[in-house]
Amino acid sequence: MNDTGRTNDSASAKYDFLLENARLVTMVPGTNGYQVLDAHLYLRDGKIAAISQHRLDTSVTDVLDCQGKLVTPGFIDSHTHLIYAGNRANEFEMRLNGVPYQTIAQQGGGILATVKATRLASQQQLTEQALLRLDGLINSGVTSVEIKSGYGLTLSDELKMLRAAKALENHRQIRVSTTLLAAHAVPPEFKNQAERYIDLVCEEIIPAAASESLADSVDVFCESIGFSTAQTERVFQAAQQHGLAVKGHTEQLSNLGGSALTARYNGLSADHIEYLDEAGVIAMANSGTVANLLPGAFYFLRETQKPPIELLRQYKVPMAIASDINPGTSPFADLTMMMNMGCTLFNLTPEETLRGVTCHAASALGVGNNRGQIEIGFDADLAIWDVEHPAEFSYLQGVKRLYARLIQGAVSYA
Amino acid sequence: MNDTGRTNDSASAKYDFLLENARLVTMVPGTNGYQVLDAHLYLRDGKIAAISQHRLDTSVTDVLDCQGKLVTPGFIDSHTHLIYAGNRANEFEMRLNGVPYQTIAQQGGGILATVKATRLASQQQLTEQALLRLDGLINSGVTSVEIKSGYGLTLSDELKMLRAAKALENHRQIRVSTTLLAAHAVPPEFKNQAERYIDLVCEEIIPAAASESLADSVDVFCESIGFSTAQTERVFQAAQQHGLAVKGHTEQLSNLGGSALTARYNGLSADHIEYLDEAGVIAMANSGTVANLLPGAFYFLRETQKPPIELLRQYKVPMAIASDINPGTSPFADLTMMMNMGCTLFNLTPEETLRGVTCHAASALGVGNNRGQIEIGFDADLAIWDVEHPAEFSYLQGVKRLYARLIQGAVSYA
Ligand SMILES: [Zn+2]
Ligand SMILES: [Zn+2]
Repeated sequence: MNDTGRTNDSASAKYDFLLENARLVTMVPGTNGYQVLDAHLYLRDGKIAAISQHRLDTSVTDVLDCQGKLVTPGFIDSHTHLIYAGNRANEFEMRLNGVPYQTIAQQGGGILATVKATRLASQQQLTEQALLRLDGLINSGVTSVEIKSGYGLTLSDELKMLRAAKALENHRQIRVSTTLLAAHAVPPEFKNQAERYIDLVCEEIIPAAASESLADSVDVFCESIGFSTAQTERVFQAAQQHGLAVKGHTEQLSNLGGSALTARYNGLSADHIEYLDEAGVIAMANSGTVANLLPGAFYFLRETQKPPIELLRQYKVPMAIASDINPGTSPFADLTMMMNMGCTLFNLTPEETLRGVTCHAASALGVGNNRGQIEIGFDADLAIWDVEHPAEFSYLQGVKRLYARLIQGAVSYA
Repeated sequence: MNDTGRTNDSASAKYDFLLENARLVTMVPGTNGYQVLDAHLYLRDGKIAAISQHRLDTSVTDVLDCQGKLVTPGFIDSHTHLIYAGNRANEFEMRLNGVPYQTIAQQGGGILATVKATRLASQQQLTEQALLRLDGLINSGVTSVEIKSGYGLTLSDELKMLRAAKALENHRQIRVSTTLLAAHAVPPEFKNQAERYIDLVCEEIIPAAASESLADSVDVFCESIGFSTAQTERVFQAAQQHGLAVKGHTEQLSNLGGSALTARYNGLSADHIEYLDEAGVIAMANSGTVANLLPGAFYFLRETQKPPIELLRQYKVPMAIASDINPGTSPFADLTMMMNMGCTLFNLTPEETLRGVTCHAASALGVGNNRGQIEIGFDADLAIWDVEHPAEFSYLQGVKRLYARLIQGAVSYA
């Protein structure tokens, strides 16, 4: 490091790509405020190799002139249910016309409608139907997206969902991180036999997903209407036995202690957490578990209990913001709108929401040392924006601001 | 009209455009439910000339095959402040960092920051800066947009805003309806002299806007922090003397009776109306004044008092939904997200929100007999969508669904 720039190279280093005249928002933790830096960014082999305020003595020929545009880490959507079949607009309408949830469920609505449609869909259909939604996220600057299974609920259908998710990488310039969420709901054929379904999850589905390397982590819907903490713990144990990281849908509708349990298993993130208490916050702080906030579901379900933002700040728990896009409770393929909701509904600052889709979201995916920051040695996953002030991401919505995205140094224009 | 179609023509009629294989959502009032109709739509001279379920005996050569896509009236955003200069992302951020509104105002923030920037901008700059936001609305299927002045607050700056709004029609395929909102705020040079400013509005600005045909209507911010009902009435009287229709920002933060006053002047719409009481609802029902609901501002300001939807239904007051896009209280260039908020926050049905951006929005602009419905004799202002179910507009957000728009029969693809 010198006074105007940093490299991890000798002077003779070769760079293969230069982003010149950038206004960098590095999102390196430990800094306060955006610290926007006018600099040139030198890449090599898809990684950030040098950040310099003056031009380095190098003959790189592949140059993108940013002309003062804002450059951020590529956004990361760290919690989605992007893969699903069917359309629940009808059910949405019935609900608003006053049809009771019971009636909708009796008519095959709710999550089981999505399960039914997803089981009937082929892997290829699942991939194709997710592309439009993925494009929405891409337009919000997303370069990495986490995608959960959880609408298959059989061995083959869960693996089909994970394969469909990974296959998105063949259709768009995107990085997909997959999460096995077989413990999303009790499937109809296991009605009143949740324990037996958890047997299947632990003894067959997790081992298969692990042996085929289809899942980066394992998730559980830990809730009175989902799975108990004891069942969640069984799933976490099976996941760890197979070398998979864990995370949880926890404390969304009540306080069962699922977040603290997730922390005990060194979970990557505890998600939703509207009902999280101080003990849970402390447990997460100690384990480095990310608080993954999902304001879209809070908004769409008209919830009133907000996550304990002040406690999370006080104990310095990193906070991510994600879309949770799914057909039942968060139909939003738009990550910057979620940032706006984070500010408007949860009173987060625009800087917190920007950390929530960059450095902290990377931690939630277990890739915090490689993505989510503009820092030497990190992957050159970047977004280039026609944006004046970094607070704008959380503010004005509906306008096109994305100019280009880079993944491992490869550019795609918006 | 015959059993399979309707025309206003003899059999020898010539049509100049055919939309074949459409799934029409006509939004003709008086029907219940969407009544989706598989039909061919024949246009002549930019108007809808025939709707028929079988092919008519005609030699029209200009054909667009809709291939079963959904066709709705072009969406109408009936309340926007699309023209403004400056960027208040900074102020948004200060507020979320806990800086009191007083301090922000003392530092020149708030609406007067926008007034200052707008006064400094040229007409051309105002048009250019609005284009990105307009594109957001266009992506939501908007073919007609109402745009208000109100950040100039001098004769020349108000007229400049109206001209900048109209000039958008030279840059995009869009119809602009202009509203003079000189009575938006008391300008700094009239501090504590609201009456004298209203003199200027009534005696100079309204007459000038009318004589140059720059405004289709006149609006007033009738509120304790805006203008009194007495001042509002003076503006309405001046407007009517110059042949301009009126409308009001009324009952947003308190119940002053501005909506009933607007109704007394046969106002096109009363907008916001969170604090509207039953007497106001009845007054609006009697005058045919549209209830223009603005859920974006309700959401962004974290309001809790909702508009009296049940009363509006009971007295059959037509309800419109609009973006209210503006830099202070509704930074949303996205009309379908406002439809989602109408459902989620105000408990409207998806059918009500669709009427709110078609037939009822047209009434709010005084063009209810020409636009906002797919009906013989109406302008061929249409939107063609990759949408399965009409409820989807209010449901899934962030995905591209627009295929094409037509204005007076001229097609532009999305
Ligand atoms: Zn989820
Ligand atoms: Zn307004």
